[in-house]
Amino acid sequence: MPARRITVTVIHKERTVDKPPHRKLADGLQCPVPLNDIPQILLSHGGGGRLMHQLIDTLFAAAFGTQATQHDGAVLPVNEGELAFTTDSYVVHPLFFPGGDIGRLAVWGTVNDLAMCGAVPQSLSAGFILEEGLSMETLWQVVQSMQQAAEIAGVRIATGDTKVVERGKGDGMFINTAGVGRVIAPQPVSPRRVRPGDAILLNGDVGRHGMALVQVREGLRFESAIESDCAPLNGMVRELIEGGIDLHCLRDLTRGGLATALVEIAKTSSLSFALEETKIGVTDAVRGACELLGFDPLYVANEGRCVAFVPEKQAESALQIMRRHETGRNAACIGTVEMEARGRVTLHNAFGTTRLLDMLSGDQLPRIC
Amino acid sequence: MPARRITVTVIHKERTVDKPPHRKLADGLQCPVPLNDIPQILLSHGGGGRLMHQLIDTLFAAAFGTQATQHDGAVLPVNEGELAFTTDSYVVHPLFFPGGDIGRLAVWGTVNDLAMCGAVPQSLSAGFILEEGLSMETLWQVVQSMQQAAEIAGVRIATGDTKVVERGKGDGMFINTAGVGRVIAPQPVSPRRVRPGDAILLNGDVGRHGMALVQVREGLRFESAIESDCAPLNGMVRELIEGGIDLHCLRDLTRGGLATALVEIAKTSSLSFALEETKIGVTDAVRGACELLGFDPLYVANEGRCVAFVPEKQAESALQIMRRHETGRNAACIGTVEMEARGRVTLHNAFGTTRLLDMLSGDQLPRIC
Repeated sequence: MPARRITVTVIHKERTVDKPPHRKLADGLQCPVPLNDIPQILLSHGGGGRLMHQLIDTLFAAAFGTQATQHDGAVLPVNEGELAFTTDSYVVHPLFFPGGDIGRLAVWGTVNDLAMCGAVPQSLSAGFILEEGLSMETLWQVVQSMQQAAEIAGVRIATGDTKVVERGKGDGMFINTAGVGRVIAPQPVSPRRVRPGDAILLNGDVGRHGMALVQVREGLRFESAIESDCAPLNGMVRELIEGGIDLHCLRDLTRGGLATALVEIAKTSSLSFALEETKIGVTDAVRGACELLGFDPLYVANEGRCVAFVPEKQAESALQIMRRHETGRNAACIGTVEMEARGRVTLHNAFGTTRLLDMLSGDQLPRIC
Repeated sequence: MPARRITVTVIHKERTVDKPPHRKLADGLQCPVPLNDIPQILLSHGGGGRLMHQLIDTLFAAAFGTQATQHDGAVLPVNEGELAFTTDSYVVHPLFFPGGDIGRLAVWGTVNDLAMCGAVPQSLSAGFILEEGLSMETLWQVVQSMQQAAEIAGVRIATGDTKVVERGKGDGMFINTAGVGRVIAPQPVSPRRVRPGDAILLNGDVGRHGMALVQVREGLRFESAIESDCAPLNGMVRELIEGGIDLHCLRDLTRGGLATALVEIAKTSSLSFALEETKIGVTDAVRGACELLGFDPLYVANEGRCVAFVPEKQAESALQIMRRHETGRNAACIGTVEMEARGRVTLHNAFGTTRLLDMLSGDQLPRIC
């Protein structure tokens, strides 16, 4: 293996949780809550009274519109068919990191879960649990980022809720999003539809999201900074379905990374997968950081990566569709589903040796999403 | 005013957060996670690996079924029409209180929000944010309570998510639920449809939920214990709609209580409401506790109470339908919408004096839901 030079600088650790990045997150609107008067979240912002209404009517309404903020619930038109429904809470630490922030994650993470059901995401809910003392400016940055992320993904934040907990009973901000979307895949997208011979496609390099967070948390500065891969996958999935690709199974590669997702699908489908390590993209920066810190990139979380199981004969056209998208530019076929039904995932490397992959055990990186 | 005798005993304060009540919450199944081996939630339970899968496949699957726990999202059949979509996070403290617990609140609170949209609740999502160190037994009690509450309300917990935060970065357990339901009201249910002359109906006495919590938190023991009113309202709302009642507006009376809800609707509709104080039920226990502690029952949160604005000529038949339900047994017409469009809520008492109600200002009771 060729030697790699990794330059690491340990920078001074800062309190990052409550510090928006310097770059402009959204369109740079002024925070509509007068920051001189109320620079921080107070317990009363969750109490149901005047301050809560002010927060909703100014800050949340400015970002998400009054439609989303004036009622207890949203009413959406639906056509006969199937609805995908999903939820995720986001507790990522720190709130801002290279390539994203909790707001983007909260929107795109749930958009991606809907896409993995073969659905076109339509509306999201947003539930905020704020810690007393959170800077109003930080909340405004995150809310703007959510709205921007929703626009990029083509979804609407339709309804929401805000709670406030006492100082020391939370950690700045937690966000839950739930989402609904119209299922457009003509067949179920599920591990149970994986078949021997299926090609296993991956839309890009792995490990960036988790290592981007480690880098910030540990105060490391690599030669080339690692940016999270977080991105919405719904556009790519929609084109695959509209392009006639029979998506047997889709799975995004968040907590537990590529390896855990594949082991899970192998167990559910009782089929075995053979992977080619050389086909799995890992950037030099991620590989270097993983080596240095003792992580395996196959187990590191991603936020814009998924695997797609497709019939072998459609693999090439599926890859072509994926590569037309920014998030799928480096899409590759990384393996196949074998005939033997043993529920195993094996990884073949360039030296001809084989490694059996297992589920992540223990906790590799807490609070990465 | 007649003198009232209130007996209050201050009992020893206990750490209540992490302590399930003695009564059997659900059907008393054994916790499926071996409590001797893993008595508490660990960070790894949120890490995406083996322990997280064990938690999902045992504890959550035992309560909610494997359908809800095996995929990133649920797929539900829908008919053409309108879908109500809502969310709420629950941060109530303590987790267990007389008459309920965070699990019931999380299910019925969201069920009620859907009902307030004129919808039949169908499916709920459940997102858990657990603090490292939470007792597994407590989680199991809450999860069982949620399933029991879902069965009572006739909804399904269809999808979920679990995150774990470090000790001291949360407070035992926060739960977010989002919900979807089919709108069955033939006309929109909205403050904008409130009309002069409308009758304002209330389904029962107010102030119990908030005072039940204060009672536990402050370690008070009243002559007659105050139990939360928390209850699902969807059955009653459904019968009102199916009974042909034209529900102009519905609103549940949670944070901020009856007064804040009415002031909000008055502002949105730009209409004025005249209320009769004598028609608004408050139990002696709640009234006594409020007097003692300086609360106004009209501003105290409820979890099973709502107001319904209906055409005057339908008021009597609406009350009859409401009274057929346990949650509406003491339903009453508490006031009317006036001709003058001033956005004001006035309260007339038995002595002929009138008080102008305003929105709750400041924070009366933090973390009551």
